[in-house]
Amino acid sequence: MKINENPNRDLWPSLTERPVRKAEDLDKIISAIFDEVQKKGDKALRAYTEQFDRVKLDDFRVNSAEIESAGDALSTALKEAIVLAKNNIEIFHASQLTGKNVVKTTVGVSCWQEMRPIEKVGLYIPGGTAPLFSTILMLGIPAKLAGCKEVVLCTPPNTKGSVDPAILYTAGLLGIESVYKVGGAQAIAAMTYGTASIPKVYKIFGPGNQFVTAAKQFALNKGVAIDMPAGPSELMVVADSNAKASFVASDLLSQAEHGADSQVICITDTVQKLEEIKRELSVQLANLPRKDTAQLAIDNSQFLVLESLQDRIDFINEYAPEHLILNVVDESLYLDKIINSGSVFIGPYTPESAGDYASGTNHTLPTNSYARMYSGVNMDAFTKKITFQKISREGIQQIGEAIELMAEAEGLQAHKNAVSLRLQDIKDNE
Amino acid sequence: MKINENPNRDLWPSLTERPVRKAEDLDKIISAIFDEVQKKGDKALRAYTEQFDRVKLDDFRVNSAEIESAGDALSTALKEAIVLAKNNIEIFHASQLTGKNVVKTTVGVSCWQEMRPIEKVGLYIPGGTAPLFSTILMLGIPAKLAGCKEVVLCTPPNTKGSVDPAILYTAGLLGIESVYKVGGAQAIAAMTYGTASIPKVYKIFGPGNQFVTAAKQFALNKGVAIDMPAGPSELMVVADSNAKASFVASDLLSQAEHGADSQVICITDTVQKLEEIKRELSVQLANLPRKDTAQLAIDNSQFLVLESLQDRIDFINEYAPEHLILNVVDESLYLDKIINSGSVFIGPYTPESAGDYASGTNHTLPTNSYARMYSGVNMDAFTKKITFQKISREGIQQIGEAIELMAEAEGLQAHKNAVSLRLQDIKDNE
Repeated sequence: MKINENPNRDLWPSLTERPVRKAEDLDKIISAIFDEVQKKGDKALRAYTEQFDRVKLDDFRVNSAEIESAGDALSTALKEAIVLAKNNIEIFHASQLTGKNVVKTTVGVSCWQEMRPIEKVGLYIPGGTAPLFSTILMLGIPAKLAGCKEVVLCTPPNTKGSVDPAILYTAGLLGIESVYKVGGAQAIAAMTYGTASIPKVYKIFGPGNQFVTAAKQFALNKGVAIDMPAGPSELMVVADSNAKASFVASDLLSQAEHGADSQVICITDTVQKLEEIKRELSVQLANLPRKDTAQLAIDNSQFLVLESLQDRIDFINEYAPEHLILNVVDESLYLDKIINSGSVFIGPYTPESAGDYASGTNHTLPTNSYARMYSGVNMDAFTKKITFQKISREGIQQIGEAIELMAEAEGLQAHKNAVSLRLQDIKDNE
Repeated sequence: MKINENPNRDLWPSLTERPVRKAEDLDKIISAIFDEVQKKGDKALRAYTEQFDRVKLDDFRVNSAEIESAGDALSTALKEAIVLAKNNIEIFHASQLTGKNVVKTTVGVSCWQEMRPIEKVGLYIPGGTAPLFSTILMLGIPAKLAGCKEVVLCTPPNTKGSVDPAILYTAGLLGIESVYKVGGAQAIAAMTYGTASIPKVYKIFGPGNQFVTAAKQFALNKGVAIDMPAGPSELMVVADSNAKASFVASDLLSQAEHGADSQVICITDTVQKLEEIKRELSVQLANLPRKDTAQLAIDNSQFLVLESLQDRIDFINEYAPEHLILNVVDESLYLDKIINSGSVFIGPYTPESAGDYASGTNHTLPTNSYARMYSGVNMDAFTKKITFQKISREGIQQIGEAIELMAEAEGLQAHKNAVSLRLQDIKDNE
């Protein structure tokens, strides 16, 4: 735990630094996997699956009966929880769909934008000890709402060659039928190039380990879009004197349990509050099943006392946290001034966990200071906007001369001609 | 000119293919330039400017007096044309700004999104024979409307060390004060790392030659965002029997004059119309100053007769054209079914030139089939969206149990605790 009281602004760059990942080391490995998958298709996938997931698979696709019966293995309460989360996430994401808004920029000149789905998308869901079914909700719901025609889900099999039922149940609930038991960089390569089993997609979404992250970056250079570049997860909590230390500590620990490289930042306006939170942290930490992991993240965490409101706001924007909890009495002092953050949680009863699972917002968010220029996943991520325009005779008469002059000044005579010819035609037919 | 009548769908993949660019060959050159600029800053920029632009510069920044007086070198008519275009582009882009829409996903759970500017953006404007001042309008107007705090413009100097007055006038008109005489990959490297003269930015926009394009891709891998990957410009015209062949030919030529690698595609529903357009093309081509360039692009162009409406629609979506002109009587047969295109121009009096300059839509658009997953530049490109949520006591009681169950099922006990603690606290204080 690094503690700084009102640090000089010269120190801020070091306080907002993220751990440096050595992505370059993986380049050769990733490049080799992509080459193999491009050349050998499913055969390469089978070999990698045997090598990395320690299971031999003939068929990667999960059959529909398995998806349909997956719910039998889950408690009714968990299924109800997933349905509740689904409803909230649907409501919030559906509210982001925009209709067309025709704008007359000049008499006779109508312009508008329309959203269209990205037709083929790939969702990557990591395997490992815990099944991240919540991420299927976060990616699958906007994909389906957008109207993406082909939604492909890849997730690694366990050593028995199967996939956790919570993952299959959630996929089934959303109507995702193309679920493939392929993981790692080979899954990303498969969705980039397509194989006999696995369709090529236009954009790949989802979290993953360092290999998956590097593979997505590689895919980006091969012409496939990705949701956003990835880094370790982050939470910044701003707590004023009214914040309950126990609430703040629980939020910091919910971030810390993700991994030793989780970024945990706590800002208070007094030393007293910071001390209270520290005490609560050690009490709560002792009872966590993942306490060793959480302890490592807490050891690396930043605790800051920033007495000035302006400093707190500036530090938030300088750091650009993925998650920001404002556990403060008067959030209006902050909201309009927050420029760089992925998702903001306001008040004492809004833990990050709410947005991770069930409030309705998306949990796929920009880390590593990318909140400066990237949004989290939302409906924009599964769609693109096409501009349309329709110009009448009167419209081209209004703007035609300006186009002619500008085209000529840029040395583009044919651009000018396309207008001149039309203006002449209108004159001739008057 | 390649002509195909109702080609079998097996042939479509070859008909929608784009020229393959060998970007890899540039990797070493670009990597060396980035290294030099990172290490030596302005000194490296001076050396590259002398080497590539054949001019020695001490100071890269265009001084404000130069910007203020630039208009003196332009005709009043051209300045008025630029102002007309500016107004239309402003109206259309301002219409894309969205306010917040607070959604109650559950009783006591409020979620919303807000747009925020990307604080630091870099605009690259190519030099060469023609000054692309229209691109400054297309990038500078949304940057200013978004409220980007730092707008940096880089453009190569000519051999006299100066910049075309139309570029400076347009920058001045938009209030862009940070104009730097640096071009090529070194300009992109400078905006990626920052130098003593040139600020580091978060996102880089703008067209350029193969070096600039490769440098932007390199910057992307160094953590800077870019507008979109680039390729040669494209126009597809769909002309029905009512379309005037002279209008269609003029549009195809306006695309062809961009360069020999410009992609020109013309689709008609009859052989007769195709023949008419061919005849008009040769008439108009003869009179163009850039006729040699245009001839090369026309030689490589695709002409298709597709008698079935469904084929025409499917071919559009399969190709995903940057620009699509629908010179047809009844556009309603098409509009809702167009999924993949950058910008659509409807009817006989809507040439692509209109959108290139003055109708109000943006001319920075996805090429190379990237319209499948990328939008053109719009207000989204200069902003990001932050999600906000505020949950009341009642709200967390509504969704708390679902969060607890899901967190537990994902093996994240501390995520569950953050909710349990709050629910217990509410009970204790009832």
